[in-house]
Amino acid sequence: MLFDKLPERVTVYEVGPRDGLQNEARQIPTADKIAFIDALSDSGLRAIEITSFVSPKWIPQLADAADVARGIRRDDGIRYTALVPNRRGLDNAIAAGMNEVAVFMSASETHNKKNINKTIADTLVKFEDTIGPAREAGLAVRAYVSTVFGCPYEGDVDPEVVVDLSKTLVDMGVYEISLGDTIGVANPRQVEQVLDRIIRDIPVDKLAVHFHDTQGTALANCTVALTRGITTIDASVGGLGGCPYAPGASGNLATEDVVAMLHAMGIETGIDLDKLVAASRLAGSQVGHELPSKYLKAHIGKLARRRRQAER
Amino acid sequence: MLFDKLPERVTVYEVGPRDGLQNEARQIPTADKIAFIDALSDSGLRAIEITSFVSPKWIPQLADAADVARGIRRDDGIRYTALVPNRRGLDNAIAAGMNEVAVFMSASETHNKKNINKTIADTLVKFEDTIGPAREAGLAVRAYVSTVFGCPYEGDVDPEVVVDLSKTLVDMGVYEISLGDTIGVANPRQVEQVLDRIIRDIPVDKLAVHFHDTQGTALANCTVALTRGITTIDASVGGLGGCPYAPGASGNLATEDVVAMLHAMGIETGIDLDKLVAASRLAGSQVGHELPSKYLKAHIGKLARRRRQAER
Repeated sequence: MLFDKLPERVTVYEVGPRDGLQNEARQIPTADKIAFIDALSDSGLRAIEITSFVSPKWIPQLADAADVARGIRRDDGIRYTALVPNRRGLDNAIAAGMNEVAVFMSASETHNKKNINKTIADTLVKFEDTIGPAREAGLAVRAYVSTVFGCPYEGDVDPEVVVDLSKTLVDMGVYEISLGDTIGVANPRQVEQVLDRIIRDIPVDKLAVHFHDTQGTALANCTVALTRGITTIDASVGGLGGCPYAPGASGNLATEDVVAMLHAMGIETGIDLDKLVAASRLAGSQVGHELPSKYLKAHIGKLARRRRQAER
Repeated sequence: MLFDKLPERVTVYEVGPRDGLQNEARQIPTADKIAFIDALSDSGLRAIEITSFVSPKWIPQLADAADVARGIRRDDGIRYTALVPNRRGLDNAIAAGMNEVAVFMSASETHNKKNINKTIADTLVKFEDTIGPAREAGLAVRAYVSTVFGCPYEGDVDPEVVVDLSKTLVDMGVYEISLGDTIGVANPRQVEQVLDRIIRDIPVDKLAVHFHDTQGTALANCTVALTRGITTIDASVGGLGGCPYAPGASGNLATEDVVAMLHAMGIETGIDLDKLVAASRLAGSQVGHELPSKYLKAHIGKLARRRRQAER
C-alpha cells in the first residue's frame, strides 16, 4: 500500500502575495494587496507569505512591503511571513511587525550566483546576519532552497549538497526548509529518491516541498511527498506567478488544485475551498489576466454552465 | 519504496482524433484530420484511435469516419482503432479496413442511460452484436468503461460493479478495458484502492487507465497506476477535447504531459516528444484555439524566449 500512512493533516503554505505578485508585470495597488491577503486569511490558510522586504530597485512590485505588512489583518492561528534578502530587509520586516521571515538560496552554485550574486559558502556566512538576529529578536525563520530537483544552468543537482545545506540551516536555527523545484522539472521517481535521501539526515517535520507546475507534474510530485511523510506544501493561489514569458504557462502549483486533491484524499487542511477560490478570483481580477489553476477553471466553467441553464 | 517495480515500458493510447475532435465546435476538414493522424503516426505512438463510426446525427464532427480511415497512412507496429456504438458502426468500420474497434459503456446506470439510452444489462446484451462479430472477423476489441471513479449523477461508484463488468467484458473477448475517470474526480488514494480491488480479479495487462485532467490530478493518478503495474495510459495530444463549456479548461490528459513525465521517470514509450509536440501544434492550429497541455505551453514559451534572445 502506498497510502497506508498518509498524514491526516497538511499545512498549505501560501506564497501568492509574494512569489506570485513579484512576477506580475502590473503594479498592484497596496490596498488591493491588503484586500487579497485578508481574503486569504478568511479562507482558513494557516501560513501566508505576504511580501518581500527587498530593495525596490530589484523588485519594484513589492516596494510597498512595509505598508502591506502594517495594513493587513492579522488573524490568530495564521503565520504571516515575509522574505528578507539581507540584514536591512530583516530590520524593515521587524519594524513592520513581522513575527516570521524567510531566507533563500539555491542548491546549485550557478543559480545561486545568478540569483543572489554570491557563492553558496558566502550566502551561508551572510545568513548569520539575518538568521541570527532574527532568532534573537524572537522571529521564526524559514529557508528556501531552490533548484533541489534540477538547475537551469547545471542540470542535475547532487542530493548530498542539499543534505549538507539543510543540516547547516537547521543548525543555524531555521525551523523549516522548503525544497524547491524551481524550474518544474522534478518527476515522481526522483522526488522519492531525493526525499528519502534527505529524510535520512533531516527530520521530515522540518521539510516542506515547493513544486512548480510548469509541466503539470506538481500534484504527482506532491502525492509522492505525502507518502514520505511531508506535511507542508507550498502553493500559490490560482497558480499566480506563472512564467512571465509564456502567457497562461504555469510556474507555481495552484493552491486550490492541491487543496482540492488533499481534501479528496481525506487529508485535512483547515481550508474552506470556496473561500480560497473567492480569494483566487479576486487576485485574478487584480492582475488582469486568467490564472492557470485547473480547479479554478473547472469551477468557473461549472458556474457558467449553471448560469446558462438557469437562463433557459 | 514506491517505485521499486515500475514498468520499463508504457503504451500511450492516443485518443485525440476521436475523443478530442468529437468535442470541438469547429468542423475539421477530412484532409486536415488525415494530416493530423499521419503526424501522430510519425511520433512513435503505437496506438491511435482515429475516429468513431457513429451516426452523423449524434456526432456530425465525425461524419467522415470512413474517409478518414481510408485516407490515413497505416504504419506497421501501430494499432489504429475506431469507436463503434453498434453493429452498423462495426460493419462500416470493417468495410473501411479497421483491424481494431472499441466499444463503450458506463459503470453507473444513470450515466449509461443518459449516454447510450440503455440499462447496463441491455448494453452488455447489445455488445454481443458488436464484440462477437468483431472477434469473428478477426478484429481486436477494446472496451471503455466510463465513470469508474465517480459519476456526475450518482456520485460514488462501487468498484464491485466495475469488477463484474470487467469480468463479463473479458469473457466476451475484449483484449483491454480502459477504466475512465470521465469527469476528472479521481484522486490518488482512490485510484490505489480501486485498482487494487480490480486487479484482484482482472489481470493487470488487460487494464488501461483513462484519467481526465479537469482538476489537474491526472498525472498524480497515473503515477499511482504505474505503481500498480498498469502499462497502458490513454491520453489526447494537447489535451484536445477540453470541456466545451469552459474555454481553456481541461478534459483529457494531454499526451505530451504524460509522455514527458514517463520519460523523466526513465520509462520508455517509443515516442519522440518533439514529433509529438509537432502533431499537437498542428492540431491546435486546426481547431483554432489554444490547447491546455502544460508541457506544450512551457515548450512554446521556451521557443518564444529563445526567439526574443536571438533578436537582441
